[in-house]
Amino acid sequence: MSEFLVSPATTWNRVESEDMKVKDWVEPSYGELSESFDVVITGVPLSRSSISASAASEYPDFFRKSWNLFTTYSIDEDVDIRALRIADVGDVKMHGTNILQCHDNIEQAMTDVLNGCPESFYVQIGGDHSITAPVVRAFANSSGQRIGILQFDTHLDLRTTESDGPTNGTPIRQLLDAGVVKGEDVYNIGLHGFYNATSLIRAADHYGVNRITLKDFRRRGAESVIANVMKELSEKVDVVYVTVDMDVLDIAYAPGVPASTPGGMRTDELFDLLHEVGKYDIVKGTDFVCVDPHRDTKELQTVKAGVYAFLTMMVSRYVHLKK
Amino acid sequence: MSEFLVSPATTWNRVESEDMKVKDWVEPSYGELSESFDVVITGVPLSRSSISASAASEYPDFFRKSWNLFTTYSIDEDVDIRALRIADVGDVKMHGTNILQCHDNIEQAMTDVLNGCPESFYVQIGGDHSITAPVVRAFANSSGQRIGILQFDTHLDLRTTESDGPTNGTPIRQLLDAGVVKGEDVYNIGLHGFYNATSLIRAADHYGVNRITLKDFRRRGAESVIANVMKELSEKVDVVYVTVDMDVLDIAYAPGVPASTPGGMRTDELFDLLHEVGKYDIVKGTDFVCVDPHRDTKELQTVKAGVYAFLTMMVSRYVHLKK
Amino acid sequence: MSEFLVSPATTWNRVESEDMKVKDWVEPSYGELSESFDVVITGVPLSRSSISASAASEYPDFFRKSWNLFTTYSIDEDVDIRALRIADVGDVKMHGTNILQCHDNIEQAMTDVLNGCPESFYVQIGGDHSITAPVVRAFANSSGQRIGILQFDTHLDLRTTESDGPTNGTPIRQLLDAGVVKGEDVYNIGLHGFYNATSLIRAADHYGVNRITLKDFRRRGAESVIANVMKELSEKVDVVYVTVDMDVLDIAYAPGVPASTPGGMRTDELFDLLHEVGKYDIVKGTDFVCVDPHRDTKELQTVKAGVYAFLTMMVSRYVHLKK
Amino acid sequence: MSEFLVSPATTWNRVESEDMKVKDWVEPSYGELSESFDVVITGVPLSRSSISASAASEYPDFFRKSWNLFTTYSIDEDVDIRALRIADVGDVKMHGTNILQCHDNIEQAMTDVLNGCPESFYVQIGGDHSITAPVVRAFANSSGQRIGILQFDTHLDLRTTESDGPTNGTPIRQLLDAGVVKGEDVYNIGLHGFYNATSLIRAADHYGVNRITLKDFRRRGAESVIANVMKELSEKVDVVYVTVDMDVLDIAYAPGVPASTPGGMRTDELFDLLHEVGKYDIVKGTDFVCVDPHRDTKELQTVKAGVYAFLTMMVSRYVHLKK
Amino acid sequence: MSEFLVSPATTWNRVESEDMKVKDWVEPSYGELSESFDVVITGVPLSRSSISASAASEYPDFFRKSWNLFTTYSIDEDVDIRALRIADVGDVKMHGTNILQCHDNIEQAMTDVLNGCPESFYVQIGGDHSITAPVVRAFANSSGQRIGILQFDTHLDLRTTESDGPTNGTPIRQLLDAGVVKGEDVYNIGLHGFYNATSLIRAADHYGVNRITLKDFRRRGAESVIANVMKELSEKVDVVYVTVDMDVLDIAYAPGVPASTPGGMRTDELFDLLHEVGKYDIVKGTDFVCVDPHRDTKELQTVKAGVYAFLTMMVSRYVHLKK
Amino acid sequence: MSEFLVSPATTWNRVESEDMKVKDWVEPSYGELSESFDVVITGVPLSRSSISASAASEYPDFFRKSWNLFTTYSIDEDVDIRALRIADVGDVKMHGTNILQCHDNIEQAMTDVLNGCPESFYVQIGGDHSITAPVVRAFANSSGQRIGILQFDTHLDLRTTESDGPTNGTPIRQLLDAGVVKGEDVYNIGLHGFYNATSLIRAADHYGVNRITLKDFRRRGAESVIANVMKELSEKVDVVYVTVDMDVLDIAYAPGVPASTPGGMRTDELFDLLHEVGKYDIVKGTDFVCVDPHRDTKELQTVKAGVYAFLTMMVSRYVHLKK
Repeated sequence: MSEFLVSPATTWNRVESEDMKVKDWVEPSYGELSESFDVVITGVPLSRSSISASAASEYPDFFRKSWNLFTTYSIDEDVDIRALRIADVGDVKMHGTNILQCHDNIEQAMTDVLNGCPESFYVQIGGDHSITAPVVRAFANSSGQRIGILQFDTHLDLRTTESDGPTNGTPIRQLLDAGVVKGEDVYNIGLHGFYNATSLIRAADHYGVNRITLKDFRRRGAESVIANVMKELSEKVDVVYVTVDMDVLDIAYAPGVPASTPGGMRTDELFDLLHEVGKYDIVKGTDFVCVDPHRDTKELQTVKAGVYAFLTMMVSRYVHLKK
Repeated sequence: MSEFLVSPATTWNRVESEDMKVKDWVEPSYGELSESFDVVITGVPLSRSSISASAASEYPDFFRKSWNLFTTYSIDEDVDIRALRIADVGDVKMHGTNILQCHDNIEQAMTDVLNGCPESFYVQIGGDHSITAPVVRAFANSSGQRIGILQFDTHLDLRTTESDGPTNGTPIRQLLDAGVVKGEDVYNIGLHGFYNATSLIRAADHYGVNRITLKDFRRRGAESVIANVMKELSEKVDVVYVTVDMDVLDIAYAPGVPASTPGGMRTDELFDLLHEVGKYDIVKGTDFVCVDPHRDTKELQTVKAGVYAFLTMMVSRYVHLKK
Repeated sequence: MSEFLVSPATTWNRVESEDMKVKDWVEPSYGELSESFDVVITGVPLSRSSISASAASEYPDFFRKSWNLFTTYSIDEDVDIRALRIADVGDVKMHGTNILQCHDNIEQAMTDVLNGCPESFYVQIGGDHSITAPVVRAFANSSGQRIGILQFDTHLDLRTTESDGPTNGTPIRQLLDAGVVKGEDVYNIGLHGFYNATSLIRAADHYGVNRITLKDFRRRGAESVIANVMKELSEKVDVVYVTVDMDVLDIAYAPGVPASTPGGMRTDELFDLLHEVGKYDIVKGTDFVCVDPHRDTKELQTVKAGVYAFLTMMVSRYVHLKK
Repeated sequence: MSEFLVSPATTWNRVESEDMKVKDWVEPSYGELSESFDVVITGVPLSRSSISASAASEYPDFFRKSWNLFTTYSIDEDVDIRALRIADVGDVKMHGTNILQCHDNIEQAMTDVLNGCPESFYVQIGGDHSITAPVVRAFANSSGQRIGILQFDTHLDLRTTESDGPTNGTPIRQLLDAGVVKGEDVYNIGLHGFYNATSLIRAADHYGVNRITLKDFRRRGAESVIANVMKELSEKVDVVYVTVDMDVLDIAYAPGVPASTPGGMRTDELFDLLHEVGKYDIVKGTDFVCVDPHRDTKELQTVKAGVYAFLTMMVSRYVHLKK
Repeated sequence: MSEFLVSPATTWNRVESEDMKVKDWVEPSYGELSESFDVVITGVPLSRSSISASAASEYPDFFRKSWNLFTTYSIDEDVDIRALRIADVGDVKMHGTNILQCHDNIEQAMTDVLNGCPESFYVQIGGDHSITAPVVRAFANSSGQRIGILQFDTHLDLRTTESDGPTNGTPIRQLLDAGVVKGEDVYNIGLHGFYNATSLIRAADHYGVNRITLKDFRRRGAESVIANVMKELSEKVDVVYVTVDMDVLDIAYAPGVPASTPGGMRTDELFDLLHEVGKYDIVKGTDFVCVDPHRDTKELQTVKAGVYAFLTMMVSRYVHLKK
Repeated sequence: MSEFLVSPATTWNRVESEDMKVKDWVEPSYGELSESFDVVITGVPLSRSSISASAASEYPDFFRKSWNLFTTYSIDEDVDIRALRIADVGDVKMHGTNILQCHDNIEQAMTDVLNGCPESFYVQIGGDHSITAPVVRAFANSSGQRIGILQFDTHLDLRTTESDGPTNGTPIRQLLDAGVVKGEDVYNIGLHGFYNATSLIRAADHYGVNRITLKDFRRRGAESVIANVMKELSEKVDVVYVTVDMDVLDIAYAPGVPASTPGGMRTDELFDLLHEVGKYDIVKGTDFVCVDPHRDTKELQTVKAGVYAFLTMMVSRYVHLKK
C-alpha cells in the first residue's frame, strides 16, 4: 500500500470473455502493491511543469479510457499476452501548486512501486517529460545500480534548472547534474530539425550524450540501431530505462503533442523501434510522456498511438523474453 | 429498371469540356440498367448495421459530391479513361428500421444490376462492411461460379451472427457459414495491431482464411503480394471480388473511418495495391466501405482517398485490360 | 434483478466528501432494482433507429461521464439534494441489428424497473426519440392508468410507421395509433420553423395533439404555460410523462443534436420550463433524447446541457415536492 | 434567357410528395426567365472583392444544398407557401480575376432578371456585400424609381472606393456617391460595438444615413422599429431593397461569418425583424450576404440561419401580402 | 521601470490614421511606467496554478493580437475614446515551476505599476483567477485603503489553500483569510447552477460574502443591480476592484473558458453590467481571467468577447467620468 | 527604399540569446533594402486571384508568427546558420480589388528588391501561385539572363489566361506565352493523380515542359532526381528559380492547402528534395505558395511545414555553398 498513489476517476466494468480486451486484462489495484505482477502501470498526471501550457496531466485518464479499443492478441506476432499479469496501481498523488512536492511524490510513489512490486516491468504514463527525472531517481536509489537511458525525442531535454526550475525541458540535465546518470549512458534517438538550440548541443557534447538523429536511424534501420545501442549500454549499465517523448512523432501522426512538428518520426517507425527494444531483458521500465489529449483530434489519434506503442513493447517482451 | 434502386438526392449539372471531370464522365442512369456500360456504380447507403454508430450511409452521397475534384486523366499512367462508359445506377433502396430487409434489398438490387448490366465491372460504395455479404451472395447466385474474395482490412470480419445478427463485423463469416464462399478462397491483406480477438483467429484457422499482415505486405511489396494472391485464386475460383474496408488505412490518412487506427496502411500503399489488382481480368467487382463522412476532416480527406482509390483501379484496368 | 439491463462500460470510483459531486451521489445498481430508490436512471442506448445517422446511442455513456462536473448543491434554489436516493440501474440490453427486439427490450426493461422500483421517479437517457414509445408502453401497461405526454420538441414526431417502421420520427404516432395515449393528452411545447410537414399537421389535427409553439411560449412565459398544461392534463390523466427531445434547443446551444436548428429554444428557457415541470407531482418520469456526443463540440456543450436539465428538474421536485 | 447566368454545379432530384421540402418547391430554371415566377432566386458567388479573405462565393451552393432540411410549411404561421411559384435562375457568371467585370455581370444579370421576370420578388444570395451595389444599380436603372435601402448590418459599409476600389466595405457609399440612392433613404439596423471608425460616422452624417443601433432596436422592439422605418421610407421612395449582412448576427449564432462578433444580434431577433419586413409590399427585393461556409461549423449553423431568414420573409409576405 | 515586467513576444506596427484601431491606440511601454497614463494594461500570463489544465497564460498574447479588430469609436455611445492615454506595460515575469514566486512577482509588478502610474485605471489580463489575490494585495498594500471586490463569476472561489495551495479556486478566500478584504465587501454576481459545493456556501455564509445569482440579476436588471451594489460598497470601502471570471458566461458565448457551462450569462448581459460599472469612479481596477485561447473556436469568439468587455468599460468610464 | 513594400502588421520583440530563435535572427527591414543581406524575405499576400476561394494571403503573417518555434541550429547538419544575414523587407503592397495592379506591384517590388539587394538569395512567401509569374518576370527583366524553373507541384499550372485572367492556375503558362521562360527550362516534380486535365498535358507537350511524377521521383530518389535536373538546367540557363506549391504535399501532411490531396508527397520527401536543391549555386530564389492558414489545423501543421522547408534549404545552402 502506497500513500503516494490514488485511484483514478473511473474504473472499467471488466468482463470475462474469450476475446479479451485490454480493459479486461489490466487489473485495477490502486495503491495496492504485490510481488505477483509481471507489469505495473502507474499514472503520473503532472503537466503544470511544462514550459508551454499542456494538459498532458489528462493523459493517464485518456490512456486508460482507450483500453476497450485494443485486444490482448497481436496479429503481427500471432500471440496473446493475456497470460502476463498486469496491474494498474493508480495515479501518483499530486499537489495543485507545489510542483517540487509533485516531483517528490513521484519519486516516493515509484520507490514504493519498485519495492512493493519487485521483479516487475514498470510502465509510467505521463504527464510531461519532467516526470522522468524523479522516476529515474527512484530507480537509481532503489537498486543502487548503474542506469542507462534510451530516449526517443525530438529534443535533448538538457536545459538547466537555473532560470525556470525542473520543467519538462530539463529531466536529462537534472539526472546528469545530480550524478544519477552518466552522459555516456544516455542515448537519444529521433532528433531532427530546428528545435535544439546551440547551448543544448554544447551541453550534450559536454556530458557525452549519444545522439542518433532521425536521418541516422532511417539510414540504419530499427533493428541495427537498437542492437547497437543495447550492445553499448549492456557493457556499461545494469538497467536501461526507456523514455518515449511522443513529440518525437511527426505532427501528422501525433497532432495531440504540443511540441510535435513536421519532419518527425512516423508511428510505424516508432512501433518498430519499440518492438526491437522489447527484445532486451536489461530494459526494466519505460514511460510515455507529453501527450495532451485536449489538443488531440476528436478521434484521439495520438492517445491511441501511445497505447499501441505500449502494447507493442509488451508483445515483443512476451515473445522474446517470455515476460 | 430495378425497383430496388432509387435516385440519389442530387445530380451534377454535367458539362461538355475538353478537360473532362469525373462528374461529367459518370452517366446518371438511376434504376435504368443497360448492357452498354463498362462500369456500373451502385450506392449502398446502409450503416445502421454497424456495431458502433456510423454515418457511413452518407458515403455514397459524399463520394459523388467529390467527383468534381478529379479529372479522367491519370498523369501517373499518362492515360485518359473517358472512353470507358460508366453509369451511376443510383442507391439501393433502404428501410428505416428493418435491417434484414435492407440486406435483402441489396441482394435484389445487385442481382438486377448483374443481370441488367452483364459483362460490366461493378463498383459498390458503402455503407458499412455488412453490405459485402448480400453483394457477394448476388454475385454467387447470378453466376453460379466459384467466387474468391480479396479483402483489404484491419479486421477479419469473422464474427458470428449469433449474438447481434449480420453486423459489419460478420460479412465474411456469413458467406463462409452459408457456403457461398470457401475459406481458402478468402485473402485478407493489411491485418495489423491488436484489433482481432483470439476467437476470430481460431475461426480464420478453422475456415482456412488466408492472412497477409501489413508487415508481410511491406516486406514483399505490392506487385509480388498481389501476383501471388491472384495466381493462387486463379487456380481455385472463377471470379474475384475485392472488398476494401477503408479502416485498413492509418488514422493519419483516414481520420473519417471510425475504426481506423495508428499503425495502419498509408494511402500510397493502398493505391499501389489496387493498381496491381487492376491488372487481373478475373476481378469483376469491388466495394469501398466504412467511410463515415461526418467524422472526416472538414477537407474530407478520407472521402477523397476513396475516390482516388476507385480511380486508381479504373485506370489500371483500362491500361492493362483495355476495359 | 432484470435480465434486460446491463452494466455500462465504466464506473466511477466514488468518494465520500463534504462537497458531493453527482458522480458520488448516484449509486450504481446495475440490474439490481429496489423499492428504496427515490429516483432511477436507466440508459437507453439505441439510435440505429434514427432516420438520419446518429450516435445518440453514446449519450448514456457521455451523460454519466459528465457527472463529475456537477455538485448536488443548487445555488439558484439554495438546496442540496443529496438526501434523495438515486440509482443508476444500467443500460437496456440492445441487439446489433434487430431494432424491433431493441424496442421490446426497452419495454421489458422499463416494466422491470417500474415493478422493481415502485413509487420512484424514472429518468431515461436516450438514445433517439424512438425509445419513448416502448417506455410509455411500459408505463401504460404497468399501471393501467391514463397517461399524458408533455413533449419538448421542434418536431411533432407523428410520422406513420408504414414506410420505415418505428423510427425516431414516429414515437407519438405509435402511441396514438395503438391507443396507448390519446391525442388530447399530448402537449408539445417548442415547435417552430419549417420542420414539420403538412401531413404531420393534419395528423396532429386529426388526433387532437396540443401544440404550443416557441413563439406562444415566449409570449406567455414558462410558469403560465406549464401551469396551464398541467391544469388541463390533471383533469384528464393519472400520470404525466415528460419527453425532452433536445433538438428543441437552438443550434447555438445544442450543436450536438443532429436536428437542432437556428431559431430554437435557449437553454435557460428549457431550464425554466423544466423547473416549472418539477413542481407537479403528477409527473412520474422523463427522458432526454437525441443528443449525439460525436457531433458535440470538444467541450461537450450539449452533453452538459442535458445533465443541467436533468438536475434542474430534480432540484425543483425536491424543493416543491420534497422528493 | 440571360447570358449572364449559369447553372450551379448540382441540382436536386426533386420528388413529388405531400410533405414538400424546399428543394422540391424551388424550380430550377437556370438562365430561363419568365413572367410567371412569384419569387426569383439568383446566386451571386463573388467574394474575391472582400477586404479580408472570404469564401462567401461558396454560399449560393451551400444555401441550395440546405433546402432539403426545410419544408414549405411554417408552424409559427400555420401556413404552407407551396402555392408561391419560385424559381432558381442560377448563378451570375463570374470572372476569375477581373472584379469590375464581375460587378458588371451582376448588374447585367439582375437587369435581365428584373426585365425577364417582372412583378416578381427578387432574392439574391451572395457573395460578399460588394454585390449589393450592382444589384441596386440594376433596380434603379430598370425601374427609374426612387429606391430606399433597409440594411441589417454591424457596419455602415460607407468606405470610399479610393484606395481599394469597390470592396465589400463600400456598397452603400458607391450608391450614394453615384446618386443612385440618397443618404436619407438608407436605414441601417443593428449597428453595435467598435467596428465603425470615426470617418465612417462622419460620412454617415454627411449623407444623412439613418442609424438604428442594436440597443435602440432592443429598446423599441421589432414591430415598432420596422413600422417606423417603413412609414418614413414609404413617404420618400417607390421601392425598398433589403440587404442583410449576416455579420449583424452575434458570433455565437453566426460563427461562419468572417466579421461576426460578440455583442451582435440573435437569430430570433433577426427573424422577427424580417417577419415584420415581410408585411410591406413596398419591399421588392433582398439579399443575404457575407456567409463563408468554409468557416462555418461542421453542422453549417450559419448557412442554415440564412435559409431560415429567407423563408421567414417569404412566409410573412405570403401571409400578409398573399404573395 | 519595473524589473517584474517583461516585453510580450510581439508588437504591433502602429500606424497613424483617422480611423484609429485599438492596436494603434494602446502605447507599448514595456516596463516603463509614467504618471501620464490614464489607463494601464498589464498582462499576467499565469495558469499553471489552475486546478484543471489551462492555457489561460496565453490570453494576454491573444488579447493583444485581437486589437486590430476593434476601433476606438463606440457606435452605441457615439464617442471616440482615443483621447484617453493608455499604455501596455507588458507582462509580469513568471517562473516556470515556482508558482509562489509567480504570485510574488505579480504582487511586486502591480505594486510597481500602482506606484509608477498613480491615478490611473488598472486593467489586468490573466491568466487564471489565482492572479486576483496578489493583484488585490498590491492594491491594499499600496494604498492602505479598504478595498471592495465586485466579482462576476459562476463560482465563489472560496476554496481553502490547505490541500492544494493558492490555486484558481482560492483567490477570494486567500484575501479573506489574510484580512486583506472583508467578506461583507465582496459581491459576486452571476452565480448559477451546480458548480459550488456546500462547503463553499458555508464559507460564503461565514464570511458574509454577498451573492447575487444570475436569476436574481435577470429579475432586477443591470442598472438596478449595479447601482445597489455600488451604493452599498461606497458606504463601506474606499476602492472597488472588479474581477471578471469569464466562466460566468454561457458556454455558447464563451466556449474558450474551461469552466464555462450551459445556463450562464449572455455576453450582452455582461457588457450591460460592465457598462453600468463604468459609471462609478470608486472602481479603480479590473481583471479579465480564465480565457484559454487554445480551447476557443478558430474564430476566437471568447478572446474577442474579452476585448469587447474591456472596451465597454473604458467607453462607459469615458462617457460618465470623463476618464 | 521601395514604395511597393509595406510593413507587416506585427513585429517580434527580438532578444539576444545564446539560443537564437529564427524570430531573433531575421532582421525587420521593411521597405529598406541593402547590399549586405545574404537572404531577403518578401511577403506576397495575394490570393484573391485564386480559382477557388483561399486565404493564402494570410500566409506571410502566419509564416512570420511561427518563427519563434524554430532555432537557427540544425541538428541534422550540426550547423548554426545565424552567421547568415537575413532580412524581412515586408509585404508587397496590394490593392483590394484590382488584381492586375497587385501583380504589377509584385513585379515592381521584386525589381526593387533585386536591385536594392543584389547578390542575395530571394525568398518569397505567397500568396497563391499566381504570384510566381510577376516574380519571375522581375528576375528576367532585372538580369536579362535565361531563367529556368524548378517547380514542386501536383499541377502543371499551364492554364491559359483567356477565360479567367492570371489566376493561380496560369503562372507557368503566362511565362511561356510571354517568352519569359522556355518550356524546356521548366521542370515539374511531384505530379500525381487525377488533377491535370488532358488539355494541360497537351500544353505541356507543346511547350516541352519536363515532368517528373511523384512515382518517378520515388523510384529514383531525391539526390539523383535533383542532380539530373540541375545538370540539365545548368547547361541551358543562367539562373534557376524554385517554386514550391505546397499542394504537392499529401493532405495528411498539408491539410491547410486547399488543393492538397491524398496520394501526395510526404513532408520528409519534400525536405530531402529541398536539401538537394540547396547544394546548387545556380538557384537564386524560391517561393512557397498556396498555404491557407485558415484551413490549417489548430496546431498550424501546414504553416510550420513551410517554415521547416524554408529553413532546410537555407541550411543546405549554408553547408554546401557557404551562403
